[in-house]
Amino acid sequence: MQRAPHSDLPVCVLGLGLIGGSILRALHRAGRTAYGWNRSAAAADDASAAGFDASSDLEATLRRADAGQHVIVLAVPVPALDPVLAAIAENAPNAWLTDAVSVKGDVARRVADAGLTARYAGGHPMAGTAFSGWDATDATLFDGATWVVTADDATPAPAWRLAASVGLDCGAVVVPAGSAEHDAAVARISHSVHVVAEAVAITAESDPAAKQLALTLAASSFRDVTRVAGTAPSLVNAMCEANRDALLDALDDTIAELIAARTELADSGTVRDVTERGYAARRAYDNARRTPVVPVLDGAGWQRALREAGHAGGVVTELPTT
Amino acid sequence: MQRAPHSDLPVCVLGLGLIGGSILRALHRAGRTAYGWNRSAAAADDASAAGFDASSDLEATLRRADAGQHVIVLAVPVPALDPVLAAIAENAPNAWLTDAVSVKGDVARRVADAGLTARYAGGHPMAGTAFSGWDATDATLFDGATWVVTADDATPAPAWRLAASVGLDCGAVVVPAGSAEHDAAVARISHSVHVVAEAVAITAESDPAAKQLALTLAASSFRDVTRVAGTAPSLVNAMCEANRDALLDALDDTIAELIAARTELADSGTVRDVTERGYAARRAYDNARRTPVVPVLDGAGWQRALREAGHAGGVVTELPTT
Repeated sequence: MQRAPHSDLPVCVLGLGLIGGSILRALHRAGRTAYGWNRSAAAADDASAAGFDASSDLEATLRRADAGQHVIVLAVPVPALDPVLAAIAENAPNAWLTDAVSVKGDVARRVADAGLTARYAGGHPMAGTAFSGWDATDATLFDGATWVVTADDATPAPAWRLAASVGLDCGAVVVPAGSAEHDAAVARISHSVHVVAEAVAITAESDPAAKQLALTLAASSFRDVTRVAGTAPSLVNAMCEANRDALLDALDDTIAELIAARTELADSGTVRDVTERGYAARRAYDNARRTPVVPVLDGAGWQRALREAGHAGGVVTELPTT
Repeated sequence: MQRAPHSDLPVCVLGLGLIGGSILRALHRAGRTAYGWNRSAAAADDASAAGFDASSDLEATLRRADAGQHVIVLAVPVPALDPVLAAIAENAPNAWLTDAVSVKGDVARRVADAGLTARYAGGHPMAGTAFSGWDATDATLFDGATWVVTADDATPAPAWRLAASVGLDCGAVVVPAGSAEHDAAVARISHSVHVVAEAVAITAESDPAAKQLALTLAASSFRDVTRVAGTAPSLVNAMCEANRDALLDALDDTIAELIAARTELADSGTVRDVTERGYAARRAYDNARRTPVVPVLDGAGWQRALREAGHAGGVVTELPTT
């Protein structure tokens, strides 16, 4: 028997691309009421034809979310954030708000500029594929994935609970984090990794005397490391540009490690130091453990306690009853 | 019906670890006579128990290869190369010689120091797994893989033909290349890729404020890029140290690309240049085509013509009849 959803409140998904459309499908699978909007009528029609409740009328969709004080999930591309937030401020100021964008500090600032901080907790599902658009959507995309829900000092408890309920109903485990810590972490495990993959792909080609042979011989290690260089440049740019400061720090650290390895090899003929530390770091990742925690969503400083729980490897798999 | 082997000459495999043991198994599968030697009696006994012709007596094994002018495949670790080459020079000067080591200039120099250049063509099967030892051997390890056979100016035609026959009988396609070009190419698609993966794994851990969260959130892009950082450091060191000069050039190019990306991001807030060129480079890899070529193994300058064919994407899948 299917378990009950983690909240009865209907969900309004704005943007029905890979992430937003998959959220709509996953919530439907979980038995939770959900409906969606997409700017292009074609995707909204496709979603409707597939049996989902979808519209291309933003104002009507937002008025519906406002009337029921539903929870809105922002899943539009970064360039569309500000106009959609303005529309929410005008037409759905009583709805709760979360998002599914891969940077959190930048979105929190835009939400604050729109005057919506008192209704908002940020979200970031750590899942995706190389494909995009409604045709690529998948109800199982988030199964077992991590889904960050931000707990900053200004985060309202009901917004955090509702954002977490969306992640859990999509099949993910929820990781509480501060926006700044989230952005620093993803700069190191995702954004800088994309930039490094681009540099590795370019390096394979940059010796004209060996370029064609390199492409002929490239095997699994090259294929794996450069796979994310096959992501559309516009998507990589949007992520990197929105997380500029944390990404600069991460790139500085990677560059420093490579220069140290180069120096070790030139001076002593070995790369022992970098390989031993790199091996240990990869083992730490392989051995990382997640500890289930029950979030406490009231009392002074609950946000800080929740951030610390996430910082220590805590994940939320159930919400306390209210 | 199984096709006939690409040569009737028996093969003597020295070293029955992952690569050498898999060569023994693959040649047996192809119906080619092959026998092996391993320094530790335990692995030789395991190979014998599995039905293969294996010994831990090096001198006797080499005298057998010498008597029949068989082809020897050197598949021992780099530190064992010089003593085993000295034993070959003493006990099997009439055998033909190839190898399965991942650098080629360094091995060619050691072969020359042992006085064996007139019997030698270098080899490098581009296959492997994270495992090692006889227990990890697999007759299908090289199926469809590329297998470099070096064609330097001093390479004798019979040695090239026999080395290529071993690769083909193991199920691989043979790529002709000069030793220097091979080493430059693998520095860029393998050795530097390992060093970069180590640096990425270290970077994920190097911000103490986000370290644990980074490990919790790391998803497929991080897992793929750092996978080779899980290789035993001693193996990575042995590859990198033996290909020092080409690896320094490759690391310099990767570091320069990352610094350029960092500068672009700091100065203009975008990483458009590196992402567009990285995407194009990865597409070039995805679209690289291999063209079958028939090797011509006589006439002045046949080695150079063969190198140029490999440089242009040519691969050898059949040997001409003699």
